[in-house]
Amino acid sequence: MLGDVSVKAAHMLSLPKVSNFFCKLIQRVAPKSYQQAHGEVYVTQKFLENFAGDQVRFLARSFAVPGNHLGQQSHGFRWPYGPTAIITPFNFPLEIPVLQLMGALYMGNKPVLKVDSKVCIVMEQMLRLLHECGLPVEDVDFINADGKTMNKLLLEANPRMTLFTGSSRVADKLAFDLKGRIKLEDAGFDWKILGPDVQEVDYVAWVCDQDAYACSGQKCSAQSIVFMHENWSKSSLLSQMNELAARRKLDDLTVGPVLTFTTEAMLEHMHKLLQIPGSKVLFGGEALKDHSIPSIYGAIKPTAVFVPIEEILKDNNYELVTREIFGPFQVVTEYKGSSAPNGIGCP
Amino acid sequence: MLGDVSVKAAHMLSLPKVSNFFCKLIQRVAPKSYQQAHGEVYVTQKFLENFAGDQVRFLARSFAVPGNHLGQQSHGFRWPYGPTAIITPFNFPLEIPVLQLMGALYMGNKPVLKVDSKVCIVMEQMLRLLHECGLPVEDVDFINADGKTMNKLLLEANPRMTLFTGSSRVADKLAFDLKGRIKLEDAGFDWKILGPDVQEVDYVAWVCDQDAYACSGQKCSAQSIVFMHENWSKSSLLSQMNELAARRKLDDLTVGPVLTFTTEAMLEHMHKLLQIPGSKVLFGGEALKDHSIPSIYGAIKPTAVFVPIEEILKDNNYELVTREIFGPFQVVTEYKGSSAPNGIGCP
Amino acid sequence: MLGDVSVKAAHMLSLPKVSNFFCKLIQRVAPKSYQQAHGEVYVTQKFLENFAGDQVRFLARSFAVPGNHLGQQSHGFRWPYGPTAIITPFNFPLEIPVLQLMGALYMGNKPVLKVDSKVCIVMEQMLRLLHECGLPVEDVDFINADGKTMNKLLLEANPRMTLFTGSSRVADKLAFDLKGRIKLEDAGFDWKILGPDVQEVDYVAWVCDQDAYACSGQKCSAQSIVFMHENWSKSSLLSQMNELAARRKLDDLTVGPVLTFTTEAMLEHMHKLLQIPGSKVLFGGEALKDHSIPSIYGAIKPTAVFVPIEEILKDNNYELVTREIFGPFQVVTEYKGSSAPNGIGCP
Amino acid sequence: MLGDVSVKAAHMLSLPKVSNFFCKLIQRVAPKSYQQAHGEVYVTQKFLENFAGDQVRFLARSFAVPGNHLGQQSHGFRWPYGPTAIITPFNFPLEIPVLQLMGALYMGNKPVLKVDSKVCIVMEQMLRLLHECGLPVEDVDFINADGKTMNKLLLEANPRMTLFTGSSRVADKLAFDLKGRIKLEDAGFDWKILGPDVQEVDYVAWVCDQDAYACSGQKCSAQSIVFMHENWSKSSLLSQMNELAARRKLDDLTVGPVLTFTTEAMLEHMHKLLQIPGSKVLFGGEALKDHSIPSIYGAIKPTAVFVPIEEILKDNNYELVTREIFGPFQVVTEYKGSSAPNGIGCP
Repeated sequence: MLGDVSVKAAHMLSLPKVSNFFCKLIQRVAPKSYQQAHGEVYVTQKFLENFAGDQVRFLARSFAVPGNHLGQQSHGFRWPYGPTAIITPFNFPLEIPVLQLMGALYMGNKPVLKVDSKVCIVMEQMLRLLHECGLPVEDVDFINADGKTMNKLLLEANPRMTLFTGSSRVADKLAFDLKGRIKLEDAGFDWKILGPDVQEVDYVAWVCDQDAYACSGQKCSAQSIVFMHENWSKSSLLSQMNELAARRKLDDLTVGPVLTFTTEAMLEHMHKLLQIPGSKVLFGGEALKDHSIPSIYGAIKPTAVFVPIEEILKDNNYELVTREIFGPFQVVTEYKGSSAPNGIGCP
Repeated sequence: MLGDVSVKAAHMLSLPKVSNFFCKLIQRVAPKSYQQAHGEVYVTQKFLENFAGDQVRFLARSFAVPGNHLGQQSHGFRWPYGPTAIITPFNFPLEIPVLQLMGALYMGNKPVLKVDSKVCIVMEQMLRLLHECGLPVEDVDFINADGKTMNKLLLEANPRMTLFTGSSRVADKLAFDLKGRIKLEDAGFDWKILGPDVQEVDYVAWVCDQDAYACSGQKCSAQSIVFMHENWSKSSLLSQMNELAARRKLDDLTVGPVLTFTTEAMLEHMHKLLQIPGSKVLFGGEALKDHSIPSIYGAIKPTAVFVPIEEILKDNNYELVTREIFGPFQVVTEYKGSSAPNGIGCP
Repeated sequence: MLGDVSVKAAHMLSLPKVSNFFCKLIQRVAPKSYQQAHGEVYVTQKFLENFAGDQVRFLARSFAVPGNHLGQQSHGFRWPYGPTAIITPFNFPLEIPVLQLMGALYMGNKPVLKVDSKVCIVMEQMLRLLHECGLPVEDVDFINADGKTMNKLLLEANPRMTLFTGSSRVADKLAFDLKGRIKLEDAGFDWKILGPDVQEVDYVAWVCDQDAYACSGQKCSAQSIVFMHENWSKSSLLSQMNELAARRKLDDLTVGPVLTFTTEAMLEHMHKLLQIPGSKVLFGGEALKDHSIPSIYGAIKPTAVFVPIEEILKDNNYELVTREIFGPFQVVTEYKGSSAPNGIGCP
Repeated sequence: MLGDVSVKAAHMLSLPKVSNFFCKLIQRVAPKSYQQAHGEVYVTQKFLENFAGDQVRFLARSFAVPGNHLGQQSHGFRWPYGPTAIITPFNFPLEIPVLQLMGALYMGNKPVLKVDSKVCIVMEQMLRLLHECGLPVEDVDFINADGKTMNKLLLEANPRMTLFTGSSRVADKLAFDLKGRIKLEDAGFDWKILGPDVQEVDYVAWVCDQDAYACSGQKCSAQSIVFMHENWSKSSLLSQMNELAARRKLDDLTVGPVLTFTTEAMLEHMHKLLQIPGSKVLFGGEALKDHSIPSIYGAIKPTAVFVPIEEILKDNNYELVTREIFGPFQVVTEYKGSSAPNGIGCP
């Protein structure tokens, strides 16, 4: 049955009219370019296609292994949790809730879904589409609430499992409140390491730009530090990254508001980094101008700061350099020789 | 890419206009009721849905197992055969060729497809639909030919693998000609065994009727013999089976022409069975009347013949009773006691 | 490498001299019959055999799925947690720690192992055997401590995952302390339901006896309630269960000390049950006599108490009847009709 | 049960006394060094370990997928063929028959086994060891016969599947006689391609020597041609290969008799190659001296012949150069530039 819902919903999302509607709706609430919003709709469509036909029932495949005697068998079955909860963030208003919600439903759970209240209109519309495609209205509870209310609901409803995507601060509190009956979508301060072989500089520059600045850096996988071998310094990599960053503008939302850091907070962080000997701004490093972004949000140009690797390795700098800024901000450093930089362990 | 073709083609088949077109086209060439033809279209649609999205690429999943030393690994990959051939029969003009063709394509093969020439118009139309949905025209070679020509083609083209569905006589010849580079879809004289617990007689009667007489018995899985425990003889099973068989009529193709046995051949087989002591006709056993089926095809009423189980076990009768008649014909027998009838081994 | 350790250790455990040593060592610290202790050694041996040869490396099998472009692939790898902790209970001094420890090692973790201090000598000897079979001594940290010390160690060492088998009270505390970075082996108040078909009474009685009284009922899967259809009441089931229970004696440890309930606690629980109208003692219900079991442990005869099913369904009785007694104590009840008793949901 | 047989047999093969017995027995009948024979015993031991414990039953794991209605399920089971036949060659007298025989037994088949009559004493002794370890004597039929008799047996016994490892000539005949009910272990003229990056020359030379000359080249995977980038010509690769080949001697069977080609046949093949312009002997190219190998077998020094790649690509030379010589003989060639040599497709 959910296979039918999936294939119908996927087909709806493949229609230009529907796809366009969701792209624009996402852009209304999240600072994304049209292309990026479209990527989110497309991934959601493909996910739904993956569970077309009988694929949902294949998820519930059980097994049996024979024993020593006639009739003796070991069986393995997959069971749903039953009552579950899903809490999703602002940065992917469609993709994250749909994928997590459908996953819960496919395995037979009864989820209550809470989407970040700034962007939940997208999922509200998507639920209506799913209902139109045959999803029974009683299969999902959709709640619009602030975090405090949701926390109370979780404590009272006591779901068997909660799936949370969001800040590590809230994750910690929930892990505690729910005594560990929680799954967390992981995030972090992400690294990119460029080895000694310099090739396809255009492509690498484009990937660095997308990784660091798409969605104004508000992705769990946003590149926060680049380790480049000295061979790359001699290439056009940095200048190309600079050019690509410079093309980003508010008009088409290739750069946009930062929802969890103010402009001041980000610039202050940058200034602290610049006090490290040898540090310098590669590009960016200024507030955006001529915009109407409210001051409770952040608005800076895509920014890259160079910090020497010897300095990063010092204890008092390490914490500072690897602090996660959920915005268009990255650190670049350089290493020499034939092996990876000593003393840096991936966290 | 084939994931996209699959999901589009599945959507097309889900449209009433398209589905109806194929149902009627199937009915033009194969003796099936509308409902049965629709079943074929529906199964084909669901199969295509199963390979929507990324499911095609998941088929090509490889694995790696670590060895004892750094860098030592065992890898397993799935490779296509390359040039392959598919030969499909008359009784499922859409389902069998689509499922087997797409399977070959999904794994990266280049197949040549031959469908039985009496029904190949269905697949010819389906190929046009697949092309419309994005299948490159050069990916499949479609040939309309008689068996002799196809045999010559196979010997000259020497495909790496041939998938054959059809009579065991041709299968034997091909296995020989192709030195075993062939896969055969299995068939046979099929059995149904009813144990001592009598329950849901309505449902069992309906299943027996469908298994034995749908598509005029021209299915590889058509029920050819029923072993019923004596408890079932006392139930209304046989009278219900008789009633259901009597409802079948030429008008809606719930009974139709038999393509591989003439009326005379089937009735002659029945008369041989009736010479076994204790045998009797349960129902049917007559030629159809008032029809325009050419005499090279068969046309009999859905028929059931009872043969005592002691007689079936005799060597000279066993061969006769278990001869496969690819038409609306079945044998019924009865056993006593608490265990399965002695001396009967499933072939 | 661990494959070699496993096969060697399994071979050692298959030697009568070694097997006998561990059986007797288990009997010194846990109230089990020789046969039961031997079962534990045997299961441990079979587990180790399952990971002989290359089976350990097969656990680390990775996969790859092709993308849309040359070189684009999705890879899935299995990673160890790294530092982990394992805490195991008194009732299976060999089987539980070996299976859990080896599982952790097979996947590349560095575990610290704590076994209940009353029985940890068994695992201490087993570790020496594993070292003899090639396990590097630095691969496992083995700690003998009380729960309080272990709790402190966990909070300070902060392992990535802790595997705990034991009481739900401690499990709750640890889930809280470790913010959910814990896996719990499940347990509970277990049920056995006998349907209306009475057959193989001997075997069923034997299974009931083993399930309820082996290891003096100190197994997570110990049968705590039997629902028998009224047809079984007319059979010799209860009298056979009584006979089997009566054969159990202290001499061969087929009955033994209960480590987590005193004799008084168990008898008091029984007396509360007997105040329910219609309840009665089926057999047992007395303290063991002529023994040297210290009074901080429990010592009662294998006991069964009948409680009418209508009474169990009453709210105030339900909690009492389903209280888990980790000893040789079970409740028996009876139901009528063709379906399962109404209103009883498995917890 | 077979899990127990496997673990016991593996343990036996791990005992130095038993291992040594089989190594020497292999050396009596096959031209292998002690180390190579030991490799065969070791691989056989590890294979048996892989099927210790419950691993055999895991092979028979079945699955079930839920349908649309209560009770509707799709089940998949693995069935044995029943009567099967295994025919194995002279070059691995222990490893090939044990692995193939146990595989057949694990899945529940009843195999008849024929090992090449020159070497079958090894498997005859191994069967006695398996019987000692608990394999029922009636589970395997072991036949010592020539090919003609075996062919007759296959035609009369008509096994459901035959597994053949041996020459392509016999394989072709069997595929025909058995109408394809045969599985063939693949072989061929094998290639090694060295790219432009020259590194670890010692190791590469050692691998080339082992691949080409171990077991006097009588392995299905024996390297028959080396394509080296011109960079390798400037390295010490060829001189190191020469040195390694020169160390091989009859005394320790690092070189030995060739069972399927005479000395004359191999030298004649070499002389034909040397008529190609630019060809030359790199090393070897002479008959062995001072030996007692009967003249029906071959006896030449490990030989490498260089042929220019332009000449190999010519049609009339290609067939000659890629003819498989199942002995210590290989062709070496050289290519230039950054990509693989044009026009050479792997067969």
